[in-house]
Amino acid sequence: MLQTRVIAPAEGAYQFPLLIKRLLLSGSRYEKTREIVYRDQLRFSYLTLNERIARLANVLTAAGVKAGDTVAVMDWDSHRYLECMFAIPMIGAVVHTINVRLSPEQILYTMNHAEDRFVLVNSDFVGLYQAIAGQLTTVEKTLLLTDAESKTADLPNLVGEYEQLLAAASPVYDFPDFDENSVATTFYTTGTTGNPKGVYFTHRQLVLHTLAAASVTGSIDSVRLLGSNDVYMPITPMFHVHAWGIPYVATMLGIKQVYPGRYEPEMMCQLWRNEKVTFSHCVPTILQMLLNAKGAQDQDFGGWKIIIGGSALNRALYEAAKARGIQLTAAYGMSETCPLVSAAHLNDELLAGSEDECITYRIKAGVPVPLVETAIVDGEGNFLPNDGETQGELVLRAPWLTMGYFREPQKGAELWQGGWLHTGDVATLDSMGVIDIRDRIKDVIKTGGEWISSLELEDLISRHPAIREVAVVGVADPQWGERPFALLVVHENQVIDAKALKEHLKPFVELGHINKWAIPSQIALVTEIPKTSVGKLDKKRIRLDITQWQASNSTFLSTL
Amino acid sequence: MLQTRVIAPAEGAYQFPLLIKRLLLSGSRYEKTREIVYRDQLRFSYLTLNERIARLANVLTAAGVKAGDTVAVMDWDSHRYLECMFAIPMIGAVVHTINVRLSPEQILYTMNHAEDRFVLVNSDFVGLYQAIAGQLTTVEKTLLLTDAESKTADLPNLVGEYEQLLAAASPVYDFPDFDENSVATTFYTTGTTGNPKGVYFTHRQLVLHTLAAASVTGSIDSVRLLGSNDVYMPITPMFHVHAWGIPYVATMLGIKQVYPGRYEPEMMCQLWRNEKVTFSHCVPTILQMLLNAKGAQDQDFGGWKIIIGGSALNRALYEAAKARGIQLTAAYGMSETCPLVSAAHLNDELLAGSEDECITYRIKAGVPVPLVETAIVDGEGNFLPNDGETQGELVLRAPWLTMGYFREPQKGAELWQGGWLHTGDVATLDSMGVIDIRDRIKDVIKTGGEWISSLELEDLISRHPAIREVAVVGVADPQWGERPFALLVVHENQVIDAKALKEHLKPFVELGHINKWAIPSQIALVTEIPKTSVGKLDKKRIRLDITQWQASNSTFLSTL
Repeated sequence: MLQTRVIAPAEGAYQFPLLIKRLLLSGSRYEKTREIVYRDQLRFSYLTLNERIARLANVLTAAGVKAGDTVAVMDWDSHRYLECMFAIPMIGAVVHTINVRLSPEQILYTMNHAEDRFVLVNSDFVGLYQAIAGQLTTVEKTLLLTDAESKTADLPNLVGEYEQLLAAASPVYDFPDFDENSVATTFYTTGTTGNPKGVYFTHRQLVLHTLAAASVTGSIDSVRLLGSNDVYMPITPMFHVHAWGIPYVATMLGIKQVYPGRYEPEMMCQLWRNEKVTFSHCVPTILQMLLNAKGAQDQDFGGWKIIIGGSALNRALYEAAKARGIQLTAAYGMSETCPLVSAAHLNDELLAGSEDECITYRIKAGVPVPLVETAIVDGEGNFLPNDGETQGELVLRAPWLTMGYFREPQKGAELWQGGWLHTGDVATLDSMGVIDIRDRIKDVIKTGGEWISSLELEDLISRHPAIREVAVVGVADPQWGERPFALLVVHENQVIDAKALKEHLKPFVELGHINKWAIPSQIALVTEIPKTSVGKLDKKRIRLDITQWQASNSTFLSTL
Repeated sequence: MLQTRVIAPAEGAYQFPLLIKRLLLSGSRYEKTREIVYRDQLRFSYLTLNERIARLANVLTAAGVKAGDTVAVMDWDSHRYLECMFAIPMIGAVVHTINVRLSPEQILYTMNHAEDRFVLVNSDFVGLYQAIAGQLTTVEKTLLLTDAESKTADLPNLVGEYEQLLAAASPVYDFPDFDENSVATTFYTTGTTGNPKGVYFTHRQLVLHTLAAASVTGSIDSVRLLGSNDVYMPITPMFHVHAWGIPYVATMLGIKQVYPGRYEPEMMCQLWRNEKVTFSHCVPTILQMLLNAKGAQDQDFGGWKIIIGGSALNRALYEAAKARGIQLTAAYGMSETCPLVSAAHLNDELLAGSEDECITYRIKAGVPVPLVETAIVDGEGNFLPNDGETQGELVLRAPWLTMGYFREPQKGAELWQGGWLHTGDVATLDSMGVIDIRDRIKDVIKTGGEWISSLELEDLISRHPAIREVAVVGVADPQWGERPFALLVVHENQVIDAKALKEHLKPFVELGHINKWAIPSQIALVTEIPKTSVGKLDKKRIRLDITQWQASNSTFLSTL
């Protein structure tokens, strides 16, 4: 290490640890009367939020939660979740945000693996919890979360019901100082193989992520993504990377927050209207669902900015949303990255150019946010040129990346090979730093020596007017190694076959966007495309399905 | 320390130190063609800025600068200063920004005390430098900074001229990693007694200050103070708390930057017009100078946002600026605080109220920025209520406060008594966290058992139409302990005496704004009020002057 000048602090000088409790200071100073809203059931001010967080800390402490303990939460998106995201880390414990869409076996695995000692359970998940309770090896006590009138449930070692406990607790808590490198949050990410893996983030990392996210300039009218006067409603589950960390940002800035509970399109539309929501974020499939929902189809969503992440944002969805008044912007990140890595940004040159080119940049993964370092590497870890054409695995350095997988040293070391976090995404980087994600490494279709991006192909196919949803995967082929296979959902009363799809793609071959090997030789029309628990295309499952269909010579396959 | 969960990083995981080099990443990614402008002499893009910083690092390294060395800069506000603020810390050295308005003796003291090994000297200061060179104990080499055609000067151990050296150097430098707690910058602050004291800031502190400043929401149209599309020109010297740290913020966000060199009102107005400047910051006296400058008096400065700090912003100046199209907002900080502590913020309730009350809050020190903790204490260090009325010394905790005074352990310990940084300012805090600075502790006028804020009195007096500038100090009085004394500068062809001033203040006594003891018994009309090297009222000097005038029974004193 370089011999720089490091000076010991003066006697008494307070060395400020970056702790989550500090994010709570400014929101109520800026806007003490702004509200936290939960469905049509509850609303309270920032001043009350601060008090409720202290009450929750007292409840947990009285229940026996100590620094270093892990406290799990099974809830829909709620004010309670927001309060847990502060109170649990603020007493030095770790909040485990449970992905309630995993299978009971997987949830059981993650809870035992994370060594959860306390669990807060929404009444909707009591049945699920009861089914696994007998096999939980570390849980000591439970708390009930409920909107129902009945404030009890058949949960083992139940301390009580959340709102009742809060009401009885003191609204004052002297939150302690401790090491800023203490783990604050943890959750599990499901890969294609093996058990879910636990990522974890420290107080320092979450404070830095929050500050950097707050400073981000975005493509929407070239002003910052999230302004002091926005009204925020997440449409990404809070168990998924703390709703992308935006609740922390909103709280720091004193922004009105609206939590929709369980995702019911009608309730979400109602909240959007009544609470004047201006800012959300979600994966493409959730937005699709919302736009197509009954009751929402005639709704003009003017003034709504939505950040799209989790999967690529394609032009068809961008334009469909635009037609409904919604301004979409792409951002990029993953569970391992806390998650914010980059967001679309239109610079002066792009804004001076055509609207068409602007859209191209609004739907790309975008420009890394401040402090994030990016590179692309080949299979041996060599750095590749940032020319906007060369593809390689995107690798990252940033102050808020998981430092490994919990109790999986081998997988952690693989993630961090060569001192860079390996995203598993194939991307190009251009001279402006713009990240263009081409595919997941494992989803790239290798045909006749060529690499074809399944994402790019999906984007082009989605432009066909008959098609509502598409997934493309590579399937084994004796001659070419792999061949692209397209799974399609068409709009009502529409049809398409492999030949028509080929006709649709031919012009893109002629324009040089894709080569002719990229045209799928086989398609299947389905009513639904399998998704993962977080709403992404489940390509592992799709490949399995296709193998079975092909083995059984299913008649609904259309072949060129 | 609490036993929290701290997990060792996975093998190979990169632990990201918060280093200034990281602030440089995003500006050129966001806006690579935006410009850095120096007067009417030089302009270059962000891409070139990054290259020039690498060139400067190569020049310094070749000249023998090593990590841990201190490199001093004597320059006006320039692109060169900006480059030094990055390149010097980025090689692990410390940049000492010399206050060129100090006396030669004080500059000599600070350079020896800081142990400067290299000095970059603007040609305007060569004479000054020569006068002290013989007594400098640690300086080994000098670099010349100049706009002149001649690229040489009679400087001892001159390495060469800045632009020539940069042109010959490589534009690539592999900036190293090191401890984020390494000192990056240092400079000296002059108190009322004793030698200047050195404050210092680390890489970590400056990165956190930059992120927090970038996230600040402000009172101007309730949007953030500094937006991606602003054009920035400092009017606070870069030697003064790194121009309040805003060059780092602007660079991180890719904002166009305009450096005016020596402060010449005509040049500044020209730059404002030609470069379309939208954002600046300065002390009140500099703004006064600019508004009254020849050639600027008919200028409409529409669209210019200026943050006022360093001294209180009074309503008269706010309104005078407003009439010229300038939107002022107060902010608060000091050399010891890096400097940003708070900025005016108008919340929803205030914005819904009267314009008059809004102005009251636009000119207060405002709401602490994220992560900053504030309190007010009495003389024994007891915390006082935040009721908007009780006055006490403002004390602070934040991630970016100086951890002491360089090589002055005793003064450092005094600064940090009780684990809080003592600002030396008397303030009230209200329930919204708004800081209202009432006075410097040493400037409060203690008369007949009452404490009178000299600042409040100056504000009320400044509303008299005849008065251009005012300073109020307490002078010894055998009967009352102290009595207020007002030093006044009147507008051309205007006069005022103590009686007229009393008439002006009477209504404020009746309204309860001040008590009757606050009416000065004696005034003096002067053509200029003494200022410190950073443009603040020099009350130490004023008190000395008054003592002399009173001793000599000067005839220009007007007594009630």
